[in-house]
Amino acid sequence: MLRVWTVTELRAALQSMPRPVGLVPTMGAVHEGHLSLVKQARSDNATVVATIFVNPTQFDETQDLEHYPRPIEQDLALLESEGVDLVFTPSTDEMYHPGFMTTIHIEGPAREFEGAARPGHFDGVATVVAKLLLQSLPEVVYFGRKDAQQVAVVRRLVSDLDIPVALAVMSTIREHDGLAMSSRNVTLSEDQRRAAPALFLALSAMRDRYRSGMQNAVQLKEGCTALLTQELLFDLVDYVALVDEETFIPWGGTGSCLLVAAVRMGSVRLIDNVVLD
Amino acid sequence: MLRVWTVTELRAALQSMPRPVGLVPTMGAVHEGHLSLVKQARSDNATVVATIFVNPTQFDETQDLEHYPRPIEQDLALLESEGVDLVFTPSTDEMYHPGFMTTIHIEGPAREFEGAARPGHFDGVATVVAKLLLQSLPEVVYFGRKDAQQVAVVRRLVSDLDIPVALAVMSTIREHDGLAMSSRNVTLSEDQRRAAPALFLALSAMRDRYRSGMQNAVQLKEGCTALLTQELLFDLVDYVALVDEETFIPWGGTGSCLLVAAVRMGSVRLIDNVVLD
Repeated sequence: MLRVWTVTELRAALQSMPRPVGLVPTMGAVHEGHLSLVKQARSDNATVVATIFVNPTQFDETQDLEHYPRPIEQDLALLESEGVDLVFTPSTDEMYHPGFMTTIHIEGPAREFEGAARPGHFDGVATVVAKLLLQSLPEVVYFGRKDAQQVAVVRRLVSDLDIPVALAVMSTIREHDGLAMSSRNVTLSEDQRRAAPALFLALSAMRDRYRSGMQNAVQLKEGCTALLTQELLFDLVDYVALVDEETFIPWGGTGSCLLVAAVRMGSVRLIDNVVLD
Repeated sequence: MLRVWTVTELRAALQSMPRPVGLVPTMGAVHEGHLSLVKQARSDNATVVATIFVNPTQFDETQDLEHYPRPIEQDLALLESEGVDLVFTPSTDEMYHPGFMTTIHIEGPAREFEGAARPGHFDGVATVVAKLLLQSLPEVVYFGRKDAQQVAVVRRLVSDLDIPVALAVMSTIREHDGLAMSSRNVTLSEDQRRAAPALFLALSAMRDRYRSGMQNAVQLKEGCTALLTQELLFDLVDYVALVDEETFIPWGGTGSCLLVAAVRMGSVRLIDNVVLD
């Protein structure tokens, strides 16, 4: 596995690598969720590129950015073990040169939920994803469905700006108790970690009710909220909503939809979703 | 010359055309300024692509958009006569699909002058230029220096988003009396057209003074403003400024700079600039 630090090196390295190229963008703290993306990219492409960049512009709280885990040596070993050919690990200065002053803003899917809870977050995501795509111009880019709203924003970005890339969205990978894999899970205390699966259990319970015929949006939302607030497992239930997966507008009541939720445990925010279909 | 209307057709056509590709984006109403870009592109590249698209998102006044000249048959003939291989003439719906909701915003060079006079103008320019570049992925894109602030914004866009293209900036082409070529010149009345060269004459007079040693920014600005306001040739002198060509921040007093000005004649806005070096 070749490691490069600059866009110039990245482009030079790609010149001699076979197409198609699959890109897996990460912020590091690599877990099984990332590795499932790498495995799929490995099976779909002649060349697999991964990026590790903790993008400061998508964090709205300095503390969250500072505490974001950065186990770089372990990340590199994991990516190499799954057959990544080229890993790009730029510095913040390499990504944002002095005088950088461009922002990509996406209305619609970026507005509510995570967008409302984390001002500027999706502007930061859209801008850095555009840069990562234009730096390496891959044929396919891989994202996990756990960050479903991010996927909706990136889908809009790629479509609206005519970025020549296919978007591959892979299933959420979960711990044995159902908790969605996330780089932030390591920051949970032992008690929090024990309680955290209740988020997925509540979503799953609603999916079961939906499949057994209870397809009323208000009842599903209230049922989920009731499960999440019982026993005070979480410090805050930020939102529970049924939305269209592509637009993130409220579900119209027909066709499939996404049940999304966000909760807070101390300073850690957990998000998850299930498809209702 | 092949003409295409959709991004799909454009990409398919480019597949069989030799590299490098030079792109000349226009809003039509093709004049000698555009043709000078085409000639340079022709001499630099194996394939020349031109686009004709009157981009609604960069107009802040509906009237200006509606009255913008659209002599499409004449445009096609002119582009073909200069050796354009492929012309892309998308509809507004082709460029902005239903649900389009992405904006590229650039601080700094986009803020003052044309940016202040035309709210949203440079957001519209940056977004459509990004799309045009990503649709055809040319090696080189050509712009005229007459729209110097647009060039500064596009330079920032390309650099900040890592768009893999070289930017070629060509000299302003002028009528025999000095008036900068512009698609909007045809909308001037006979009297306005007779008076219009006074803009370039004032800028040129200041360039002469600069070259003869009068290099004080305040005096140059005041001298230019005095020339533009005398005899009431223009209905409004919107701005006169000495700026750095890349950042459009006020000139620091050393090195070369750009003297930029904008005036209004009735509903027509004229802009022009000269380099002071």
